[in-house]
Amino acid sequence: MRVIGIDLGLLQSGYGIVERNGRDFSCLCWGEIHLPKKAPVGQKLCVFYEQIEAIIKKYHPHEVIIEEIYLANNVKTALALGQVRGVVVFLAERCGLPVFSYSPLKVKQAVVGYGLAHKEQVKNMVQRLLNLKETPGQHAADALGVALCHLQHLRL
Amino acid sequence: MRVIGIDLGLLQSGYGIVERNGRDFSCLCWGEIHLPKKAPVGQKLCVFYEQIEAIIKKYHPHEVIIEEIYLANNVKTALALGQVRGVVVFLAERCGLPVFSYSPLKVKQAVVGYGLAHKEQVKNMVQRLLNLKETPGQHAADALGVALCHLQHLRL
Repeated sequence: MRVIGIDLGLLQSGYGIVERNGRDFSCLCWGEIHLPKKAPVGQKLCVFYEQIEAIIKKYHPHEVIIEEIYLANNVKTALALGQVRGVVVFLAERCGLPVFSYSPLKVKQAVVGYGLAHKEQVKNMVQRLLNLKETPGQHAADALGVALCHLQHLRL
Repeated sequence: MRVIGIDLGLLQSGYGIVERNGRDFSCLCWGEIHLPKKAPVGQKLCVFYEQIEAIIKKYHPHEVIIEEIYLANNVKTALALGQVRGVVVFLAERCGLPVFSYSPLKVKQAVVGYGLAHKEQVKNMVQRLLNLKETPGQHAADALGVALCHLQHLRL
């Protein structure tokens, strides 16, 4: 089972391909997409789509895993993130891949064992669980975290 | 100058192609897209994208016009509509078309001459301004309205 985890963001986003082999997890690639703040939204969405599409075509994951978007009362951010989410869900559908999402709480519980863990702890656990030589950036770590969360849920 | 107006919605949306010839406006086509409530979001976004793409490829508008999304405090709706907006903005970018958006207030002012006009009034004025034989549905009327609003702004 191989999945792509994606951390959604209009300016900065992350992705990672994670595979489960029996009880072990391995990471095939991870990366971050940083877009210029001043580019028009359409251009950002296009670059984002094309980069994620290229990763999917190269690594052929079976499922797409994203974090649930939780925004207490911020309508503006919800609208902006909704646009990025729409493009990812659309891309997944075009590629015939199902989409699963998990709350940040569930991701932290799955990766660190503690729902209120700090971002630094998530990063370190992701690096350890996947035997990464380098510490991933925050967005890549979040993407790998949500992928790991899904694969652990599958195992249970 | 030929534009496509789009009324965004995840279940029900509308579109219309409007052309300005000197001082007159004409409508080349209008329609509504109704999607089954129970279909997965990805499938809805895909059908929506493909139908709008087909209209763009058939009528070659120069610009894409949508209504600004205004949602006082509804984060859930903002997220849902954001997804549809994201797919439209992405599609426009892929087709090399600029996107313009207007508030519902501006659309009503432009079409009816009165920002607090009722939906019924917008529908009737759209039908009259474009010499439509049939009264368009609400979503098509909104799409044609925002297209007319843009073309009137251009003229001024």
